Amino acid sequence: MSQYKAPLRDIQFLLNDVFDAGTQWAALPEIAGNLDLDTAAAILEEAGKLASESLAPLNRSGDEEGAQWNEGVVTTPAGFKEAYATYAEGGWVGLSGNPQFGGMGMPKMLAVHVEEMLYAANSSFTLYSVLSSGACLALDTHASAELKDTYLPPMYEGRWAGSMCLTEAHAGTDLGLIRTKAEPRADGSYAITGSKIFITGGEQDLTENIIHLVLAKLPDAPAGPKGISLFLVPKVLVKADGSLGERNAVSCGSIEHKMGIKASATCVMNFDGATGWLVGEPNKGLAAMFTMMNYERLSIGIQGIGCAEASYQAAVAYARDRLQSRAPGGPVAKDKAADPIIVHPDVRRMLLTMKAFNEGGRALATYVGAQLDQAKYGTDADARAAAQARVALLTPVAKAFFTDTGLESCVQGQQVLGGHGFIREWGQEQLVRDVRIAQIYEGTNGIQALDLLGRKVVADGGKALDDFLAEIREFARQPGVEYRDALLEAVKQLEETSQWVRDQAGNDPRQIGAASVEYLHLFGYVTYAYLWSKMASVARARLDSDPDFHSAKLATARFYFNRLLPRIEGLIACLRGGADSLYELGAEQF
Amino acid sequence: MSQYKAPLRDIQFLLNDVFDAGTQWAALPEIAGNLDLDTAAAILEEAGKLASESLAPLNRSGDEEGAQWNEGVVTTPAGFKEAYATYAEGGWVGLSGNPQFGGMGMPKMLAVHVEEMLYAANSSFTLYSVLSSGACLALDTHASAELKDTYLPPMYEGRWAGSMCLTEAHAGTDLGLIRTKAEPRADGSYAITGSKIFITGGEQDLTENIIHLVLAKLPDAPAGPKGISLFLVPKVLVKADGSLGERNAVSCGSIEHKMGIKASATCVMNFDGATGWLVGEPNKGLAAMFTMMNYERLSIGIQGIGCAEASYQAAVAYARDRLQSRAPGGPVAKDKAADPIIVHPDVRRMLLTMKAFNEGGRALATYVGAQLDQAKYGTDADARAAAQARVALLTPVAKAFFTDTGLESCVQGQQVLGGHGFIREWGQEQLVRDVRIAQIYEGTNGIQALDLLGRKVVADGGKALDDFLAEIREFARQPGVEYRDALLEAVKQLEETSQWVRDQAGNDPRQIGAASVEYLHLFGYVTYAYLWSKMASVARARLDSDPDFHSAKLATARFYFNRLLPRIEGLIACLRGGADSLYELGAEQF
Repeated sequence: MSQYKAPLRDIQFLLNDVFDAGTQWAALPEIAGNLDLDTAAAILEEAGKLASESLAPLNRSGDEEGAQWNEGVVTTPAGFKEAYATYAEGGWVGLSGNPQFGGMGMPKMLAVHVEEMLYAANSSFTLYSVLSSGACLALDTHASAELKDTYLPPMYEGRWAGSMCLTEAHAGTDLGLIRTKAEPRADGSYAITGSKIFITGGEQDLTENIIHLVLAKLPDAPAGPKGISLFLVPKVLVKADGSLGERNAVSCGSIEHKMGIKASATCVMNFDGATGWLVGEPNKGLAAMFTMMNYERLSIGIQGIGCAEASYQAAVAYARDRLQSRAPGGPVAKDKAADPIIVHPDVRRMLLTMKAFNEGGRALATYVGAQLDQAKYGTDADARAAAQARVALLTPVAKAFFTDTGLESCVQGQQVLGGHGFIREWGQEQLVRDVRIAQIYEGTNGIQALDLLGRKVVADGGKALDDFLAEIREFARQPGVEYRDALLEAVKQLEETSQWVRDQAGNDPRQIGAASVEYLHLFGYVTYAYLWSKMASVARARLDSDPDFHSAKLATARFYFNRLLPRIEGLIACLRGGADSLYELGAEQF
Repeated sequence: MSQYKAPLRDIQFLLNDVFDAGTQWAALPEIAGNLDLDTAAAILEEAGKLASESLAPLNRSGDEEGAQWNEGVVTTPAGFKEAYATYAEGGWVGLSGNPQFGGMGMPKMLAVHVEEMLYAANSSFTLYSVLSSGACLALDTHASAELKDTYLPPMYEGRWAGSMCLTEAHAGTDLGLIRTKAEPRADGSYAITGSKIFITGGEQDLTENIIHLVLAKLPDAPAGPKGISLFLVPKVLVKADGSLGERNAVSCGSIEHKMGIKASATCVMNFDGATGWLVGEPNKGLAAMFTMMNYERLSIGIQGIGCAEASYQAAVAYARDRLQSRAPGGPVAKDKAADPIIVHPDVRRMLLTMKAFNEGGRALATYVGAQLDQAKYGTDADARAAAQARVALLTPVAKAFFTDTGLESCVQGQQVLGGHGFIREWGQEQLVRDVRIAQIYEGTNGIQALDLLGRKVVADGGKALDDFLAEIREFARQPGVEYRDALLEAVKQLEETSQWVRDQAGNDPRQIGAASVEYLHLFGYVTYAYLWSKMASVARARLDSDPDFHSAKLATARFYFNRLLPRIEGLIACLRGGADSLYELGAEQF
């Protein structure tokens, strides 16, 4: 099993050369004082060390040992506690947190790369921390000053963690069905009663306290999604001076036995009149929770890239070493009994597929991160709104496309190893199992596709899409753009397909769901084409400096346009098959 | 977790109505006396019971418990021993075995369906038996009369099992590299010395003896694949009277810890001067082993269908029960808080994808089974040769396309269950883990694709392909063919793409491996189009009898042509990207 190496050179290329992060950060007053490219590089190097040295070594053992439950107490695998302490001490929980409460105030454009490295090294471990960071973000955005003062500093410090309690046994995708109740008490708190399932890190032994963000219904709440409120429910009640008091009436009933991310505790959480506090407005809980959800969705997307990058590195190492058969044109390693399998075209096809997806995905994560920073820190209201619209458009694409291509990549990485890919000690099969959940949680990829096509493209009248495509065409008008024609053709196909679905959906609302998954993939491939064109153009201009790196970038771009982008032909053809043939069968005929 | 139900109605449709098995069997003298459609139906019903009642209940527990190794002894999970006894008593090991030695002499066209049910119920269990059946076939075809007399009867009875010992640590795909040696002894036996890995059922506690078929090199053997011989090496030596004697010098050094098929023991087998007997001619071992390999390849393909069918059934049951959100056109289950998810277009798309792949695959397995029967039992030498060529062409397609679509189907089936798909007790995740190996073993799917395109299409001058396409065109000329135009267009695309690759490969041998995987998928989709057209045409003609079944068949065909076959547009476009962009990167630039 090979050692994970943080892709620092590629990140540097994206931040410095492709997206000119230095200039972007200098224009944001809240960032400018804290960060320049050198500081960013130092932070990334530290994160890479943390990932390689502290987290990666616990990945296999964590999978074998798993999280354990015993009478309500959850024990994480050996080494997790110490690693979490190291992680917290480094200030990583609060990396992009609000400095007013002890966060480091770093931009998302930087944080996305830190997250990728953490997921690549150890997805189970990383979930404990990203849930905390997401909970902090929701509190920072929606909670009262008092709640923020009390809870954010120890959360950013990593002494307390966060969790996200949405799903109930009968209510997953359809949160309007939840039954957990919140009864107001005289002291301004609420008594929370109900049971939640699939709660990542709902219980663990890494932190002194766990701050649950819980969706529940007030007594007079309207039915459905508009009657949901958000509550803060600590595992251990907090005294006025901030010290820990009694255990709250919340407990972990059991943990799930899962396909992967076995070291991450997936908990059934029971709230038995637990004390909680309202976060934000009554009945506006879903919107408040979506602050956290959107953060998590991008993050979970990045899990797809992280796992795929780890798989890619292991597959490349194996393909260089493993001797088997001869190259199609004749022996390459003439002194050996066979050639390394990296000479075979199909092995190269698999490796290049992974490489093109990973680097394309990393570029999109950087781009979305930059838009999130503009939306949060930008000095111009219109520019902030535009960036927010871009984020809303691209978040479902990032979540679903990163993780769908992430599974494909990990399966390919496993395939490169042949039989060894199926054996646990080689690590590739764990990446397949770990990445698989990312297509399911935080809204299944089918739900992401409905969100993209239904809410962001059709319902919006296409404004956000038009703006995005205008940006791509604007880019393509510049001189020296690589793969300009192929890019513009792909953009045209996306535009025409979007219009086709819009036309269809006017008469038949089923057409949206019938087209949505293929549409999201089409959108993903076209977006990667934009970013590969951008990266290739920058690489071409810089070919003389670091020619090995930049020529590899150009070669990967060529592979992407030649061998991956044409997949959209099949996607469009299938999508245009429409909804009718989905509805000929009665439910009993399946 | 839902109960597996054998798809007897669909099998009956294929045997009786689509492929007219009764007429086919009546024309084969060695089959005709043993079998008619009613007997076949009774055998299939029994196999279905065995699968549902004896094997399916051990699938989850077998996965949790796994095969265990202790000082050379392998213990299968609880219940496996008793189930194997039931299985052996039923005569299933010898189902298509030679009646001269106690086999039942049933045609492969029937056996493929029995295998599908067994894999669907319990893939780990089934591997023990299919390896035995395959070993019997290799012995029946290549071994001396004496070896056959001694070994085949107890193997068909299921008292003894078989194994297939090819792979060594440094020699997987490239068997020419093997190092296991066979030294001739004065008594006509050989001393076998070497170590084999990834040996399915190399050791187990189900049978009294295990008959290993081992590839090894004679002292004077030429280098490479032409210097490999095949040996029969029993775990326990057999006395002249057929009773068991001393342990042979073969032992199980360890078993692998794997992603899936955990109840199947994957063994390291050490041969320390073990006594063996030559099977077939010296240095012709690879050809002899391929008799078994081709059998196993079809069988392993069928594992893909079996797992996918089990996943489909569980997904349908869940989709009918699970209430979540409302149908796009408004509430369907108005009295409930939400609609069953089977109303949602994307859920239907996933279920129909699985259904179309499974039924298309089942049809192709039947077709290949029928060709195998013609090749073996046909009365006309030319017809036998033609059938053999068809089998050679379609075996790699069946193996790789059944298992690639099998993984896709199981992943979709898991996705239908949302979060529950990731939880072990629901069973869907096990199917994903179990089916995944089928893309790897018995020759990776990449190797199958090279075999198809390199050996069967390009090297053959296209004769076998031309004959197959001529058969499809002949079918399309009949009256009442459903989807005729779409089928003929797809055939034309396959033909043109084949010619394009042939032209490219003339100048550049890398083009074959560069195109092979997409080519095999193209071939698979076109072949399924042929079979879906055939099935739809039969269903249309029979619509008045059992209209529920036949209209479902027509609806699934429509989905296939509308929503799956168009994927070939993307495959062809990607394939035509060619080999150049695979070779721009140096090995160190990945």
